[in-house]
Amino acid sequence: MAKLRHNAGMNREIHCDLPIGVFDSGVGGLTVLKAIQEALPNENLVYLGDTARLPYGTKSPVSIERYATQAAAKLQEQGIKALVVACNTASAVALAALRAQMDDVPVIGVIGPGAAAAVEARPAGKHLVLATEATVGLGAYRIAIAERDPVAEVREQACEMLVSLAEEGWSNGEIARAIVRRYLDEATVAVPDTIILGCTHFPLLKDTIQDVADDDIVVVDSASTTARVVREVLERGALRRNSDSPGLLRLLATDGATRFARVGGQFLGRELSHRDVELVDL
Amino acid sequence: MAKLRHNAGMNREIHCDLPIGVFDSGVGGLTVLKAIQEALPNENLVYLGDTARLPYGTKSPVSIERYATQAAAKLQEQGIKALVVACNTASAVALAALRAQMDDVPVIGVIGPGAAAAVEARPAGKHLVLATEATVGLGAYRIAIAERDPVAEVREQACEMLVSLAEEGWSNGEIARAIVRRYLDEATVAVPDTIILGCTHFPLLKDTIQDVADDDIVVVDSASTTARVVREVLERGALRRNSDSPGLLRLLATDGATRFARVGGQFLGRELSHRDVELVDL
Repeated sequence: MAKLRHNAGMNREIHCDLPIGVFDSGVGGLTVLKAIQEALPNENLVYLGDTARLPYGTKSPVSIERYATQAAAKLQEQGIKALVVACNTASAVALAALRAQMDDVPVIGVIGPGAAAAVEARPAGKHLVLATEATVGLGAYRIAIAERDPVAEVREQACEMLVSLAEEGWSNGEIARAIVRRYLDEATVAVPDTIILGCTHFPLLKDTIQDVADDDIVVVDSASTTARVVREVLERGALRRNSDSPGLLRLLATDGATRFARVGGQFLGRELSHRDVELVDL
Repeated sequence: MAKLRHNAGMNREIHCDLPIGVFDSGVGGLTVLKAIQEALPNENLVYLGDTARLPYGTKSPVSIERYATQAAAKLQEQGIKALVVACNTASAVALAALRAQMDDVPVIGVIGPGAAAAVEARPAGKHLVLATEATVGLGAYRIAIAERDPVAEVREQACEMLVSLAEEGWSNGEIARAIVRRYLDEATVAVPDTIILGCTHFPLLKDTIQDVADDDIVVVDSASTTARVVREVLERGALRRNSDSPGLLRLLATDGATRFARVGGQFLGRELSHRDVELVDL
């Protein structure tokens, strides 16, 4: 019995050393990865960007679900103790399918945490969600906010050009401001209380959006709230890594290591080389 | 013998009734399809947009070649008498692989015709090519122009934001002008003689580009030159359809019939319904 219990203890420790898997259609999810690294610096992490098939935001739900479940299966193959779906579109479309697939590995999306952060910032507020076509088409934030605050008002605006702005590295300046202003004008006549960044590319544009929007509008980014939820889930499941050493990070992509390094570095806030990125097939 | 020759005649007629296959990563190639329809109104056409995996322009050559050969195989399955690669990126990366794959079906890319049109417009000229990252990365226009005009000067500029501008339907107005101006500023200090639209999305932006550029710069669009090459290839191969009735058009896409119809209508210059688009798997 003593031996068995010892083994069980060993196994638990090994299990807690497993990385948290973080998955996105491309590099945008690195904003979420960064927040998780800051909140949980001792955790091992493995990030998978499905760059061969990005963007997901303009694809159909059927394709998005197929892509997301394939990406999750690849991370499951590597051995992970939790899965973070760091892509709003995949969270909107495929969260239920991913939970069914991942058995007892907890699966955390970004839309619930984003909605919670907005409701916390402005209870009974008017929320404007900036997101991809697919996320808006499914009303994902509308539903998530209504569950948490039934009197809140929600308006959702598809903003595909903001994705390319962030990818091109044009997050500041007059062109970025003009594009943000146009989407805000198209979205709403009334002034919202919050603007929710409903796509993991958009935190790069946070300053520009705050700059264009009225000063008293709260710009809500789901990255830090998602990191908080990841910590809670790990603690609830006794899954925290028991070590003072900094966690390791592996970066996987399905295409274009050089481009991943160049664009991803902007999201992660540090230089990356193509040698930091492993190519995988899904 | 008489019977055999009669059959051979029949077969040739049936063969000439086969459609021309036109393939693109998405809807941009519809600008080329439209030019072919105008030049050859009696030809049957089948268009395949690989919308499940667009855009190709930011993907790696290995992925682009795999996607392009799969799309060509799907069109070959339907029966076609010629293949038009109406995508600059796929033409830059995969033309040799596609020619090897398609046996005796002639394969026509858009880069050769685009380069020829520019050289014809301004012999010994200075050419500025606006294209995707992948097309620029391979120097595809630089090579195609040098083959036709060794003293020409060529400068290539990657312009990913122009793709999203066209897809978003923001082809005119102040934002479009500001983005075009920025790329032109980044591209060159000297004033070019031509600007080559090296991506099938860009003809939608032709007016804006001409507006921003100096009046005496010729903006070259490969669509009409490609259509002329298609006509020559069909005539050379005795492949022209012998009929006065208007040709039929089938539209195939790998994802998102509704979005294909909405965005594609802008490229084709007429209203499309999602019922006009057949979904296929590659």
